[in-house]
Amino acid sequence: MNVILGSRGYVGQAFLRELERSNEVYVAPTRHDVDIACVDSLSRFLRDYSASFVINCAGFTGKPNVDACEHAKAECLFANAVLPGRIREACVRAGIPFGHVSSGCIFEGSRPDGSGFVESDIPNFCFRSNHCSFYSGTKALGEEVLADCSSCFIWRPRMPFNEIDSPRNYLSKLMTYERLLNATNSLSQLDEFAKICLECWRRRCEYGIYNVVNTGCVTTTQIVSMLQTHIAIGKRFEYFESEEEFLRLAAIAPRSNCVLDNAKLRATGIPVRSIEEALLDAIQRWTSN
Amino acid sequence: MNVILGSRGYVGQAFLRELERSNEVYVAPTRHDVDIACVDSLSRFLRDYSASFVINCAGFTGKPNVDACEHAKAECLFANAVLPGRIREACVRAGIPFGHVSSGCIFEGSRPDGSGFVESDIPNFCFRSNHCSFYSGTKALGEEVLADCSSCFIWRPRMPFNEIDSPRNYLSKLMTYERLLNATNSLSQLDEFAKICLECWRRRCEYGIYNVVNTGCVTTTQIVSMLQTHIAIGKRFEYFESEEEFLRLAAIAPRSNCVLDNAKLRATGIPVRSIEEALLDAIQRWTSN
Repeated sequence: MNVILGSRGYVGQAFLRELERSNEVYVAPTRHDVDIACVDSLSRFLRDYSASFVINCAGFTGKPNVDACEHAKAECLFANAVLPGRIREACVRAGIPFGHVSSGCIFEGSRPDGSGFVESDIPNFCFRSNHCSFYSGTKALGEEVLADCSSCFIWRPRMPFNEIDSPRNYLSKLMTYERLLNATNSLSQLDEFAKICLECWRRRCEYGIYNVVNTGCVTTTQIVSMLQTHIAIGKRFEYFESEEEFLRLAAIAPRSNCVLDNAKLRATGIPVRSIEEALLDAIQRWTSN
Repeated sequence: MNVILGSRGYVGQAFLRELERSNEVYVAPTRHDVDIACVDSLSRFLRDYSASFVINCAGFTGKPNVDACEHAKAECLFANAVLPGRIREACVRAGIPFGHVSSGCIFEGSRPDGSGFVESDIPNFCFRSNHCSFYSGTKALGEEVLADCSSCFIWRPRMPFNEIDSPRNYLSKLMTYERLLNATNSLSQLDEFAKICLECWRRRCEYGIYNVVNTGCVTTTQIVSMLQTHIAIGKRFEYFESEEEFLRLAAIAPRSNCVLDNAKLRATGIPVRSIEEALLDAIQRWTSN
């Protein structure tokens, strides 16, 4: 029995769809069923349901964006750094493994040679690098809390998107923002992300950190060009001149723009599309609400 | 009505003694009375007791020392960084101010000119400086969580001591450790610390951060010399050759050794003894269990 925590969120919903699609048994408890912040309560729940695997999608991302975390620091710290530790403890007590949805946003830029960061690289967009959003800081601490756990997957998505318009969809964000910052990024097609994460468990891959992003990277202008080619958008896209201008005019906290290497994931044999293919597919099938 | 949280701890007990000594009304709830981690529960409790001021002494320090925090990261983060935010929220809802016991251990060394760190200096022994114990990192995050709070005292003690032998008393620790690291530190006489903190509130001092340490600083060898002069200790004190040797042989996490300036506190007019006077007094009245 799979247990999915935080199933009401954007990423959690994708896991639910994938579990439905593959006809796997799962339970997606709400706060009325179990207090997942309470180790006693959660470990009892896991035993009651004979849970074999837990997927933690619970987290605090801030609405409408990560800037909101700068004004909800305790809540953000709790959901992103403390809660993973509580879930770990409950899973250890229940004797089962789990997977935790982390984030690639604990990195910025790329390696000195321009290649993507690998799983053994030390996060450079976190409290310890003293340059981060509070959100990224807490996500990196969440990984620290799980660092010595021997039966857990840490899955890192980057700015998820798919073909369905949503305030959390990176493509929707790009189409909504008044001005954009041109940057190079790795991205994760949302449904592919959920499927890959579950494949890590189904195939009994080695536990540890995985950059679960589509292969390659893409610039904001490349995505905009694809959007303009395939979707009739009645707007002109304008850009900030620099990250400094973006921060001065449109943001409170700095943003992570980064390239992640997914070679460790590909080495498992789990299929993953290139970012170009995944983007083109989503944009061609784009569905507005 | 004063409400004291975390009253069973070493620092909390000192606040209790001071409240008793001064015949002030207070309530010191236990976990059976109120779940202080729950904002609803705590704010209801504060209203039920017509609380006028909250003193937060709750925290996770690790036993026997801060190294234990390296293996209890989620718990440490929760108690030292998330809980202060919850207490803040409950106090804001109840419309009352509060004081939070932080720690001076979020600094290391002294200012470049050898003087002590002042309250406006940025912590240099925390996650953001990427050189700290996990404990210090969480205490600094706790201060960040409270940074924009307009009705709260942040009191920083340093390695509390008094005349009563205790595993948490810095003098007891010095007498117990097999080998010592010679370093220069500010210290806080425990009972004076609690009295001064409460005086900040009684005198309605300006809210904000206060380094609540005795005036001046002292080296480990100076304290040892005072101990040897006044207490018959049947042991030879031995020292590590360097901080590196100390870390290699006796510790997991680095330790904060630092000098804090208490001029802001003294400017309030609240009396505070010199570290020499406070130490001599404690050592001359030393009481073993």
